[in-house]
Amino acid sequence: MKKQIFSSAAEVEAAFYEALARSDLDAMMSVWAEDEEVVCIHPDGPRQVGFAAVRESWRQLFSGGIRLVVQTSHRVVSSSMLLTVHNVVEHISVEGDDRLHPPMIATNTYVRGALGWRMVMHHASTTPEVTDLSAQGPHRVVH
Amino acid sequence: MKKQIFSSAAEVEAAFYEALARSDLDAMMSVWAEDEEVVCIHPDGPRQVGFAAVRESWRQLFSGGIRLVVQTSHRVVSSSMLLTVHNVVEHISVEGDDRLHPPMIATNTYVRGALGWRMVMHHASTTPEVTDLSAQGPHRVVH
Repeated sequence: MKKQIFSSAAEVEAAFYEALARSDLDAMMSVWAEDEEVVCIHPDGPRQVGFAAVRESWRQLFSGGIRLVVQTSHRVVSSSMLLTVHNVVEHISVEGDDRLHPPMIATNTYVRGALGWRMVMHHASTTPEVTDLSAQGPHRVVH
Repeated sequence: MKKQIFSSAAEVEAAFYEALARSDLDAMMSVWAEDEEVVCIHPDGPRQVGFAAVRESWRQLFSGGIRLVVQTSHRVVSSSMLLTVHNVVEHISVEGDDRLHPPMIATNTYVRGALGWRMVMHHASTTPEVTDLSAQGPHRVVH
């Protein structure tokens, strides 16, 4: 399979959440750097280190048959030429389930290598309050 | 107060955990970039954005009178000239409390500016299992 070249961290992030929405394991793993030091933390889950462990965690998640659609907002960015960090609020909906789900917070890290940008860390966790987000005016965040 | 100059992300990280162990608010805030886009997420807490909000969250935590001592291990690093990300396992102990506490996972982001390295993001969350860490051999992680 020819690998897609991502020309920015934002492109990788869009592909990451699209792969998640489709529960598409190949597409998901194509956004990750093939590296033994990639790190993935699902909400309330253990830390997974290394491409194989990260792949297995997504395989298990997708095999559950639950389709998660995630919209992100309130992105805060730290970036340099070769490394970019996004902190985002994740708004979760589950296909076929109209209940409101609490948002998550994710820190996503991307590295630029010979084959363009790839994800190297995804750290997601639960957050208790939505109301706090309203206090974060647009002057403070990058959308 | 003259601000300390940190010459590496690792130095900032050491100062961060020392300030935490001493519940020293001034020392804690001296490790953070004075920026409206710094982000701090305490375990299971809401996202705090901006220097003032981050300061207030530490003030509240320290005013509780509980002294947290945190040892970190299993550091995974992504770094570039101006930006560095550390993912670490945090081992927590509470002064005067001999109980074992579950570890936390933290993603810490540092930026190099005119005044040396500073922290710009701290994202900490709970993690369920210690046993998973034993599977992460030294070939996969940077200590």
